[in-house]
Amino acid sequence: MQTAVLTDVEEFEVRERARPEPAAEEVLVAIRDVGICGSDVHYYEHGRIGDYVVEGPLVLGHESAGEVVATGEDVDSVSVGARVTLEPGIPCRQCAHCKRGEYHLCEEVEFMATPPHDGAFAEYVAWPADFVYELPESVSTREGALCEPLSVGIHACRRGDVDVGDTVFVTGAGPIGLLVMEAARAMGATDVLVTDVVESKLDRAEARGADLTIDVTQTDLATAVDEYTDGVGADVVVEASGAKPSIKSTLDGVRRGGTVVLVGLADEAEVPIDVLDVIDNELDVHGSFRYANTYDAAVDLLADGTVDVEGIVDFESSLDDIDAAFRRSMEPDTVKGVITMED
Amino acid sequence: MQTAVLTDVEEFEVRERARPEPAAEEVLVAIRDVGICGSDVHYYEHGRIGDYVVEGPLVLGHESAGEVVATGEDVDSVSVGARVTLEPGIPCRQCAHCKRGEYHLCEEVEFMATPPHDGAFAEYVAWPADFVYELPESVSTREGALCEPLSVGIHACRRGDVDVGDTVFVTGAGPIGLLVMEAARAMGATDVLVTDVVESKLDRAEARGADLTIDVTQTDLATAVDEYTDGVGADVVVEASGAKPSIKSTLDGVRRGGTVVLVGLADEAEVPIDVLDVIDNELDVHGSFRYANTYDAAVDLLADGTVDVEGIVDFESSLDDIDAAFRRSMEPDTVKGVITMED
Amino acid sequence: MQTAVLTDVEEFEVRERARPEPAAEEVLVAIRDVGICGSDVHYYEHGRIGDYVVEGPLVLGHESAGEVVATGEDVDSVSVGARVTLEPGIPCRQCAHCKRGEYHLCEEVEFMATPPHDGAFAEYVAWPADFVYELPESVSTREGALCEPLSVGIHACRRGDVDVGDTVFVTGAGPIGLLVMEAARAMGATDVLVTDVVESKLDRAEARGADLTIDVTQTDLATAVDEYTDGVGADVVVEASGAKPSIKSTLDGVRRGGTVVLVGLADEAEVPIDVLDVIDNELDVHGSFRYANTYDAAVDLLADGTVDVEGIVDFESSLDDIDAAFRRSMEPDTVKGVITMED
Amino acid sequence: MQTAVLTDVEEFEVRERARPEPAAEEVLVAIRDVGICGSDVHYYEHGRIGDYVVEGPLVLGHESAGEVVATGEDVDSVSVGARVTLEPGIPCRQCAHCKRGEYHLCEEVEFMATPPHDGAFAEYVAWPADFVYELPESVSTREGALCEPLSVGIHACRRGDVDVGDTVFVTGAGPIGLLVMEAARAMGATDVLVTDVVESKLDRAEARGADLTIDVTQTDLATAVDEYTDGVGADVVVEASGAKPSIKSTLDGVRRGGTVVLVGLADEAEVPIDVLDVIDNELDVHGSFRYANTYDAAVDLLADGTVDVEGIVDFESSLDDIDAAFRRSMEPDTVKGVITMED
Repeated sequence: MQTAVLTDVEEFEVRERARPEPAAEEVLVAIRDVGICGSDVHYYEHGRIGDYVVEGPLVLGHESAGEVVATGEDVDSVSVGARVTLEPGIPCRQCAHCKRGEYHLCEEVEFMATPPHDGAFAEYVAWPADFVYELPESVSTREGALCEPLSVGIHACRRGDVDVGDTVFVTGAGPIGLLVMEAARAMGATDVLVTDVVESKLDRAEARGADLTIDVTQTDLATAVDEYTDGVGADVVVEASGAKPSIKSTLDGVRRGGTVVLVGLADEAEVPIDVLDVIDNELDVHGSFRYANTYDAAVDLLADGTVDVEGIVDFESSLDDIDAAFRRSMEPDTVKGVITMED
Repeated sequence: MQTAVLTDVEEFEVRERARPEPAAEEVLVAIRDVGICGSDVHYYEHGRIGDYVVEGPLVLGHESAGEVVATGEDVDSVSVGARVTLEPGIPCRQCAHCKRGEYHLCEEVEFMATPPHDGAFAEYVAWPADFVYELPESVSTREGALCEPLSVGIHACRRGDVDVGDTVFVTGAGPIGLLVMEAARAMGATDVLVTDVVESKLDRAEARGADLTIDVTQTDLATAVDEYTDGVGADVVVEASGAKPSIKSTLDGVRRGGTVVLVGLADEAEVPIDVLDVIDNELDVHGSFRYANTYDAAVDLLADGTVDVEGIVDFESSLDDIDAAFRRSMEPDTVKGVITMED
Repeated sequence: MQTAVLTDVEEFEVRERARPEPAAEEVLVAIRDVGICGSDVHYYEHGRIGDYVVEGPLVLGHESAGEVVATGEDVDSVSVGARVTLEPGIPCRQCAHCKRGEYHLCEEVEFMATPPHDGAFAEYVAWPADFVYELPESVSTREGALCEPLSVGIHACRRGDVDVGDTVFVTGAGPIGLLVMEAARAMGATDVLVTDVVESKLDRAEARGADLTIDVTQTDLATAVDEYTDGVGADVVVEASGAKPSIKSTLDGVRRGGTVVLVGLADEAEVPIDVLDVIDNELDVHGSFRYANTYDAAVDLLADGTVDVEGIVDFESSLDDIDAAFRRSMEPDTVKGVITMED
Repeated sequence: MQTAVLTDVEEFEVRERARPEPAAEEVLVAIRDVGICGSDVHYYEHGRIGDYVVEGPLVLGHESAGEVVATGEDVDSVSVGARVTLEPGIPCRQCAHCKRGEYHLCEEVEFMATPPHDGAFAEYVAWPADFVYELPESVSTREGALCEPLSVGIHACRRGDVDVGDTVFVTGAGPIGLLVMEAARAMGATDVLVTDVVESKLDRAEARGADLTIDVTQTDLATAVDEYTDGVGADVVVEASGAKPSIKSTLDGVRRGGTVVLVGLADEAEVPIDVLDVIDNELDVHGSFRYANTYDAAVDLLADGTVDVEGIVDFESSLDDIDAAFRRSMEPDTVKGVITMED
């Protein structure tokens, strides 16, 4: 089968590899769509993310969906022919985190496209049957692939405990910011404010129903939020940009007793935080890391039409053109590219 | 000013009363719309609800909205001319319940149209400024009045902890059942199943997006829910009918580890419950009584267009025709009547 | 190795069986102490509990602790020589319940001494390494075995969300009731009220710090609770008797907005419940089934001396005398017997 | 009546003032004991705390208890002769915060000894009856006064969601740190680790049951916590020192998925926080500001003997010697002084 292998910084090679055999509790999935994530692009550009270093040829891609073409002998939850989305992290199922239901915090999780684990830019992937989720007819495999970033959005909003009638302020209108917005509206947020520095991204947020978009290169954010909320602040702020000034601004935008969710991976680890503000206003600041127990909801929200993920897609490309697709993904106004494989 | 006073069982009298003066922290509201609630009809028919007995002439009505025409000297949160909805229960603000934020459980609450407290079928009501909520232009006073039953729906769904992607099963398609459905969808429920015994009510549920409607006179409920959920059961069941067989059926419809919310006031207090089922399936059974901290969300959801309350209204009537309106409200296929007062 | 096998109603046979080999992820435990649970006694007397029917020879016992004598090849979390307690239910690790951290609700759980799964009245048990918990020196294997009923108590109190300063009312002073009391005090409950019909059990509750004991054959419970709480009611009621009148009485004892936890398995499934009371007082009624994520806490509480489990033990016996031990366990004033195996 | 008035920086004057009259819903309390809080000392030394500036003569003191000597006409919850503790912040009872039960976040709260509101270093204080709490015989007025800092500890532990069996790491062994430790143990924490830079404070923590005390001038904190928890980290870290390096260290001490509570008021507002750590380890960082709904629990915990507050008291002094008492309170090894007034 064909795979796109990252062989060096900014260098993909399409290689033949042996088609995997599904183990007893696995299914073999013919991959159809794989989203290009910011982390994929980061590995492509830099060969590493923090302590995770690409040390040998690596298959990237962890936002994937396809069709089941074979099943292991113990699998009865899904059948050949089913269209499925793949949840990319497989936890140990034995540690305290797994037992508490926070399996995304498992220290032994094997996550697609995180070295040394290969990802989904490949014709076939063998995957545990309980980490694939069947797509109903109304949900395309492209949408299925995007259940992954949507899951990040759902988890962030759950970490923020978004409630009906809430005002939610999202910093950053990239794929995560936009899908946080979708998830927040699905949970009943009635006012969503979105910031970015790229006009086209803000336009997309507005088209999808943002109540206020703020170009932080033009407008003072604190003033804008203050005005919109009559000086109260947002109930929940989700930081989805990873930009240092944006992280600091979350505290200016949140109401007393409100919640700040940090989900955008910062370039720099250390950011000066006004701890007196956290204490005096009794804020909740919640890190949000990947997700757990979101895929069923993600599929249902797409099937129901409550949430849109198509709006974040800029272009589709083939496995052979993956290099060009990654270059395009590096441009600042690209939100999401998808690699599509032939049926 | 004119008021409709319940003078005896099934007997209203439109009487002149002195227009109230707002106290320092009150506003005077010229009432525009008042919904007729099942409890109003019950007082009309029977002169009592349980221990609450109508002992003198009583003004009914607690689903109300209107226009502020005067404000007490200490009021600065709202101005003359504002269109507002009135939250009908005023708690003591001092007991442990009030301090914990569950002011609806305050034993000293004074609730409109619950003897001996007069309600809103009157031209004017003086009301504490912090229990009126301003309506934006896009929300009518009729919708404002219906923030009350909508609040019951929101509170019930909060008591059920409805989450995105949830399957919610609602028993009873009266005003509460229908607004529970609206609230559940606003919170991200993707599958809503509704039961009733009146075809026209089920049609209304379907028109508003119910995924499955079940006429329990025709179809076996347990089988229907089982089929729809592949034998799993609903994540949340909200009992909104008050009918004894329906209360029993909630346990058949809920999944293991799921939540049953009881909100429909039963005719009979004692219902045999399968406690082994509650234990073995580790169910949460939550009573839901009125609401607290819902009005801001209710107004926002209406302003946002996320929720519809107009769909439950069958007819409008004037204060002079209140008797006929109550008679019509006693018919089984009536969902909601509204008394409207001239501008 | 020797095992005590239930061969018929009220008939144990001590039989030789092959000593099990630990699988790769299992440890082999030489069992030292096994508590006799009410469910063991029920199988002994009746050959069944509800739908669970003893159809062949069955080893009972699921409250166990012992010493690790061999480890499977993949085990590194625990070593030979470690003294451990065994959590008796092994879930599938794959279903939605397991992933949500509520693995005790897994439909595929294999639970010791629940037909057809053998239990721990045996010299050796092979068990998954991640479901054994090491005991520090200060905790005996007898205490280790009683981590099981203590876990039931901890889980019930968590289901009741017991908070510091709470008044907790426990119905039934059997092993579960007494350990609910221990767990409640460990969570900061400052007033614990306990009922029973057997004087000696109430004495034991009092000796362990119950603030009020109520013999419900002598004293009107509602009056007693009312007096103690100045008419307010308990914050949390834990029903640990399974007796029908006791289940009904929980609603009389709980405060408005309080929580009732049902944990005692009822003889009869159907109990008439005053649903109007549940609604008007906005009660939470929570089933509590076994436990999840409690063993670490149970061991820590014993090591710390915060909780006592020795107080519930009436007698120790050997495997050879298991029949007599079960007969003694059937007497109404017995709380807990333990089968001890030689080193 | 006599009052101690702060007239200038480091200058108290004992002055006669008119004894207040209780309003209809107030009681008049003859004050017996008033604790000296760090904030009192800060006003004494600097004349301000942040934006709160002492602009005229101010009575300090907000940790108080005494005896009711008169009651307003509408008071029936408490009688003359009752010994009570006073909760020092009176909220507006009308805003969204008050209605949600988070009345400590009310923007209009009037808090004793926070300019311009006078405090309790006075022979008499008139106070709303619903913010005084009766002390049972077994609780002294000195303990009653210390319900205030104990409340800070309880609230911080609630914000940290401390559970049975938890390992709690407390930075700072001043009055708040020590009472956080008491509250954490009351909630079932089985391992409590405490840091400080003053040996005598650590000794006191150890005497009260700290499982590990760390002198951070001598020992590397991260290593110490790591060793104690086998590399896992504490479930909950409560930062009670306000020292910048200590705030940073909280992230080194907490486990993945754990909670950091910030309660110690920092000298400097801005502290560099490793946001990647917050995200990757999915931490909860919770500000904790004063308290709400804690006094009943505080009194109960003292009455029950679960919690000790006497252990934090270094000395008692009279109103006449308040100046010397404040000077002594400025010394680094003083934990708590109390001003006692004659009967």
